[in-house]
Order: sequence, then structure tokens, then C-alpha cells
Amino acid sequence: MWLFPRHTGEGVMKIRFTKMHGLGNDFVVLDAISQRFVPNPAQARYLADRHFGVGCDQILVVEKATLPGIDFRYRIFNADGGEVEQCGNGARCFVRYVVDHGLTNKREIKVETRSGIIAPRLEDNGEVTVDMGVPRFAPNEIPFISDSDAAVQPLRLGAHDIDISVVSMGNPHAVQVVSDVNTAPVAVEGAMIESHEYFPQRVNAGFMQVVDRHAIRLRVYERGAGETLACGTGACAAVVAGIRRGLLDSPVRVSMRGGALSIAWNGPGQPVLMTGPATNVFEGEIELPEEL
Amino acid sequence: MWLFPRHTGEGVMKIRFTKMHGLGNDFVVLDAISQRFVPNPAQARYLADRHFGVGCDQILVVEKATLPGIDFRYRIFNADGGEVEQCGNGARCFVRYVVDHGLTNKREIKVETRSGIIAPRLEDNGEVTVDMGVPRFAPNEIPFISDSDAAVQPLRLGAHDIDISVVSMGNPHAVQVVSDVNTAPVAVEGAMIESHEYFPQRVNAGFMQVVDRHAIRLRVYERGAGETLACGTGACAAVVAGIRRGLLDSPVRVSMRGGALSIAWNGPGQPVLMTGPATNVFEGEIELPEEL
Repeated sequence: MWLFPRHTGEGVMKIRFTKMHGLGNDFVVLDAISQRFVPNPAQARYLADRHFGVGCDQILVVEKATLPGIDFRYRIFNADGGEVEQCGNGARCFVRYVVDHGLTNKREIKVETRSGIIAPRLEDNGEVTVDMGVPRFAPNEIPFISDSDAAVQPLRLGAHDIDISVVSMGNPHAVQVVSDVNTAPVAVEGAMIESHEYFPQRVNAGFMQVVDRHAIRLRVYERGAGETLACGTGACAAVVAGIRRGLLDSPVRVSMRGGALSIAWNGPGQPVLMTGPATNVFEGEIELPEEL
Repeated sequence: MWLFPRHTGEGVMKIRFTKMHGLGNDFVVLDAISQRFVPNPAQARYLADRHFGVGCDQILVVEKATLPGIDFRYRIFNADGGEVEQCGNGARCFVRYVVDHGLTNKREIKVETRSGIIAPRLEDNGEVTVDMGVPRFAPNEIPFISDSDAAVQPLRLGAHDIDISVVSMGNPHAVQVVSDVNTAPVAVEGAMIESHEYFPQRVNAGFMQVVDRHAIRLRVYERGAGETLACGTGACAAVVAGIRRGLLDSPVRVSMRGGALSIAWNGPGQPVLMTGPATNVFEGEIELPEEL
């Protein structure tokens, strides 16, 4: 068995990685326990490049814990090499990675992240549950310019008003109910809502179709990114808004183009629990210049 | 050593692959000699998907030759599973693949392709030379609506005329000389040229800046794709046009955003020789459902 990173001469090292995704949000996962390696910004850009490198949205690095009683630490890097907060899709991939690679036998795993300690749990069906935190509704916590934290509020878009529910899941969401997600004007109206003057830090715009009290279909126009295949915090925000408005009961299955999540919430002050899949795609080995 | 594809139960097989690129045109390369496998359309879509699969422009399959005196056969599949003609970037990656993986000791390799037999050659510097065929100038061979095959012809774009050279490298090209490729109006004017009524099958629009008699900078607006990082046939067409117009002498180094190619041409009736890099990015293993 080779030790990794394996120095293959002339300042080149060979790195093992696993490509994973959670509902299409994809990661290059690096085991920094058996191979001591954290990418520098140039290496992160190379790994993330979809034509010249491996290609991914983000790089997930699994490390030993630094605190007592904690199982692992993980870090997420953007393609620009900057380190970012934990995200639900990354946490699900992390759990499957450490279980599938035999790094732990536990089902509930305590992890240090940049956002604090989390305890995601592997379910019997192979999906992973992550605590997504307590939703916030106060306008200044969104932020949203309003003197009300009512569950439904009007928002003027051009010549007409729409009804939105505003929720912060650590990031701001404006959710509306539509009769059919397939025909909802996500591109045009999503862009108008995202940059509406009442959302000074912009907003993620969700379009939710209620199927029954335990099922919705959802499309999300993400802040700065446009419509995406799936949005974990958007799914949480939509379900919280629907429960608050009396349209839904916990738990709720959320179907998005990239796949489905199950969201549970027991009401104000309680955390949102998100359960969903994480998928191993392939295993790879890449030579990286150390000085890249 | 495992035999591949390795059946890992429940209709799943494990496939080895190599990810390569030529100037950013990227390929999943499969050895179908040691592992008997050609992707079906659903498998091709999965392999090519950049979020849910490996991600590539095309899939390149290396096979045993079927004809005497020929070294290999290779096939290229698009992400939709359709089989396509050989391309210069694919041929370069093919040569590096069979040399780097020890499948041949030859430097000039005879290969069956869907476009006929080609004989790409590995150069001492590790680059690969490919015969790109004889350029054509007759208007009906482009096709281009004109009664002249002059080296420079006017084309009306909106309110003004531009000077273009038309060349077929198996696909149609309209090349113009600009003073600075960085400020050339590639997006706007490229789209107008691509769909100009005088090109009934549309056209690739090249913007070439002459640096000296052996060097150009080039940007290409590709038919149906918009501006790309590099275009092999576009590089050939630009150099042929420049030599024909008396601006360039063979060989010519062509710098594009995705990298550089060297193009040689000895004049009318002679083939164009393209020399350029092919890069191994990583080695991988993926499990594919047989019934995908």
C-alpha cells in the first residue's frame, strides 16, 4: 500500500480523492488523516476546474479532530481556495465518506466545522440527517425591510403584489406558493425578488408547489447563482414557511430537480432537521505540483 | 490485479478510466482492450455529466484494430451517446494514452477512426502531430454563397463590410484579421457571422491577430457553441488563411486562451499538420450500473 501524498519526483505529489455529490452539489473529498494535505488556493482552483482538473463545486477535507470527545474535523474550500462555512450537502457527504471508508463505526458523528460542532447522523436507509439550525423570522435578522414578522407578507413586483414568507436559515429566503413549479416564472421573477430593494443583502427566492400536507415540489433561484438543481437551506425555508402558514405538517418531503430531501421541524425555536442522500461517484488519483 | 470491468454484484461493474484534455477539450478515456466495455447512451450521459458523473466533453474509447497493419481503433462518443467523427484534440489524447499506458512503443501510430485511418505522431517534446486534412476554398465546399474563391472577400455585417477568408477544414470557417484579439467583438460579431445568410450551414468565426510571420493570437466563435477556449480546426483555418494572404509563413504558433498549437502547411493541395499537447489529469475508477 502506498502512503499518500506520494512524492513522485520533481515537486509532484500524488493525491487520492473521492468524488461525491449531494443532490448534484458536488465535492472532491480528500482524506487528510491518512495523507497530510490541505490544498493551497492554486491547487484548489486546479482541483475544482471542470475542464483542466477534476471539477467540483467545493473541496471537502476530512481531518482528525482537535478537540476532546469529537470524532473528526472537516473543512470546505471554494474553487478560489477560500474556506467557507459548513453546508448541509457537504455534511451529508462527509458522513457517508467516513462510514464508507471505514474511518468510524458510529452512526452519530461529532464534527468540528468552521460553523461550530455539528452531529450529523447516518440513517438506516443510508441517508444522512443534519441539524440545520433554528429558523429566524424577525425582519432585521433576514434582513428584510418590514415592520412585521407575519408568516405572509406582500411584496410589490413591478405592477402587482406577490405574497411571500421570509425566513433566515443562516441565509435569507423569500418563499412563495405557486400552483405549478414547472410553469413558475423562476428566471424572471426570481431575479426581481433576489435584488428587490426590500432585501438589502439580496435573497434566495423559492417557488413551492404544495402536493399534500407532507410533500412539496420546489425550485429555488439562488442569490448570486440563479436557479440551481437543489438548495438545502431553500428546502428548509420552504417547509418552515409552509408549516407556519398552516399548509404543511412535519415531516415534509421536498422534491427538487436534483433530487429529494426530507425536512422536519417542530415549530418556532426548534431546529430544522434535514435528511437526504449523499452519493459516491468515483475514486481517483491525481498528481499535483507542490508549488502549483 | 483486477480484471475490468469488474462485476461488483447486482448488475454493477467497476470501470477504470483516465481523464485527459487537449487545450481544455476534455475526455474520459476508456481502455476497451483490457476491459471490454463501450458505453451505452445512458452510461455515456452519466460519465459525461459534470455534477452527477465524471464530467467531460466527450468519451474516447480505445479498442483493438479490426484491420491488418493497423495498431488501434478509437471511437468518440458525445454526452448523448452518439458516435462522432475523429477530432484533433481527441487524436492527441489517444496517442498520449496508448504511449503512457504502455500499449505501444511506436511513435507513429496507425489508427482506425470513424473518419478513416489516421497516423498521428508523438514528437520528442511529448506533443502530438495530427494530419488535419487538405483545406478547401471552393465556395460550394464551404458552403459559402459567392462566385469567387479569392483569399479575401467582403462580407456585409449590418452597416459595414468586413474582410473574411473562408476555409473548409471539414467544417466551415470564416477568419478575419484584427489588430487586438483582446478587444475584438467576438461575442456580438461572432454570432452575426455564424448565422449570416451567406453561410447556409452556418460557420465558425475566427478573429486572428498577427504577431509576426510565425505567430498569431486567435479567438474562435464556434458554430452552435459560442466562444470556446481553443479550436483546433479554427487554428488550422486561420493559419491557412494567413499563409494564403501572404501574412504568415509555415510553421505558425497559434496562441489561444486554452493553450497553444503549432500549425504547418505547405500550400494548396497539401494537408495541414497540427502539433499540440495532450494532458493526463487523473486516473479513476467508477461503478456503473450495467442497465443504466
